[in-house]
Amino acid sequence: MQDQVPQVAGAERPAATRRYALGVEYDGSEFSGWQRLSRPGEPDTRGEPTVQSALEAALSFVAGRLTEVVCAGRTDAGVHASCQVVHFDGPVERDPRGWVLGTTSRLPPSVCVRWCLPVADDFHARFSARARRYRYRILNRQVRPALQRQYLSWERRPLDADAMHRAAQALLGENDFSAFRTVHCQAPHARRELQHIQVRRDGDVVEIEVQANAFLHHMVRNIVGSLLPVGRGERPEAWIGELLAGRDRTVAGPTAPSAGLVFIGPRYPASWQLPAEVTL
Amino acid sequence: MQDQVPQVAGAERPAATRRYALGVEYDGSEFSGWQRLSRPGEPDTRGEPTVQSALEAALSFVAGRLTEVVCAGRTDAGVHASCQVVHFDGPVERDPRGWVLGTTSRLPPSVCVRWCLPVADDFHARFSARARRYRYRILNRQVRPALQRQYLSWERRPLDADAMHRAAQALLGENDFSAFRTVHCQAPHARRELQHIQVRRDGDVVEIEVQANAFLHHMVRNIVGSLLPVGRGERPEAWIGELLAGRDRTVAGPTAPSAGLVFIGPRYPASWQLPAEVTL
Repeated sequence: MQDQVPQVAGAERPAATRRYALGVEYDGSEFSGWQRLSRPGEPDTRGEPTVQSALEAALSFVAGRLTEVVCAGRTDAGVHASCQVVHFDGPVERDPRGWVLGTTSRLPPSVCVRWCLPVADDFHARFSARARRYRYRILNRQVRPALQRQYLSWERRPLDADAMHRAAQALLGENDFSAFRTVHCQAPHARRELQHIQVRRDGDVVEIEVQANAFLHHMVRNIVGSLLPVGRGERPEAWIGELLAGRDRTVAGPTAPSAGLVFIGPRYPASWQLPAEVTL
Repeated sequence: MQDQVPQVAGAERPAATRRYALGVEYDGSEFSGWQRLSRPGEPDTRGEPTVQSALEAALSFVAGRLTEVVCAGRTDAGVHASCQVVHFDGPVERDPRGWVLGTTSRLPPSVCVRWCLPVADDFHARFSARARRYRYRILNRQVRPALQRQYLSWERRPLDADAMHRAAQALLGENDFSAFRTVHCQAPHARRELQHIQVRRDGDVVEIEVQANAFLHHMVRNIVGSLLPVGRGERPEAWIGELLAGRDRTVAGPTAPSAGLVFIGPRYPASWQLPAEVTL
């Protein structure tokens, strides 16, 4: 994740605009990730549809002009979102409800706009966010999932969710998360504040919820990939703390599959007056 | 639902066989329903894949001979199952674990075998069942679902789940359910014992759980379709009891969409020694 403010392309910003925030839900199964790789307004590369392109195409249609969005947290191929937040600058005269229904009607079935609110001009979906929350779900049984398989990863060996939970607490606080960052991560540094991590079992499903101020590329999936050997009893609980301290990606667990991961959403200070689910 | 015992085709039953029960999970989205329409061992009609055909093809491969199954409850196109139960007669020497893993490995991703147990020769997946349980889930918000859309129906107008729950209690007991039976239903009579019905809200989702000794064709979806006008306040709570008493399908609500429906599974007397989730 890089720290530059994306530039709004398409020449100057029209005179009469208002900034809007949108809550966006998507099933990542059919997308090659959030981020558009083509130029603004141009179609995605064949076979590599992105959520950003789909959303911008729908918004641009409703706005009647090329519209770009900035998101709170870019998600990888196959990763879902229950409340991604984006901002964009649109015509002032449009009713928020019109953005919700009009845009959703132009989106594929795997994406919808859940809400839209006008926000102050200095709101920024990415830089105004103080926290992000993800959930990872693992079906823990002998046989692969059929129902819900789009939204689950799978582990056939029995997992001790309590041991995983205790081990995970070593990650709390502001730390250098180099051990859990992909080599492709472009962030200038690896310090992040992990605010909450909980592992619990619900029947056959082991669920991991994690919140941080921000995440490195693949950070959640790499944490999950390292908690799995602890859950299987192959590594001691103390291993997670040792991995963190060692800062060495090459000795940590493999990246867990994308299907189990949902971006629950970002959290903003209450002063932005956004819906409760994205407010701290 | 007809009341005949399906005949095992393919000439006589081989001498050394054992009867097995299987717990089967499937995502009905990609199927035109449970029931095979082609002859045993022959492929489904193009564009009309059935769960039964897929399962029989996989079992036949593992068994090394044509194998037919009998299920506890046939499901319609688009309806899911978390634990359909079937029985079949297979070679005695096969380990139950081999049936689970071997069969699942030959099934499409939308189907798996969760468990397999040898059962007494007089066990019958359909006629031994004393109850069936279904769950129906409705996303109740302004915008259609993106995440989980394979497993939800959608109602944009606010639903009063408590009113739906109270209204539904009029259906309890042994009744003639003609008002909630499709015209295509082939059952010789419409008397069924509704043992349990609960409507409750969990956030944006209204969930209906219903258990009966057996169900008529479309019965769950027709009950849901009639509870919706009550939930929207268009009909009084007493309407459900009146519909039941009137036995007239043409005045009840429309059939609710298939996507929200999951066959949780049948229940058998404990004497059959099946897993707890399918035991009374």
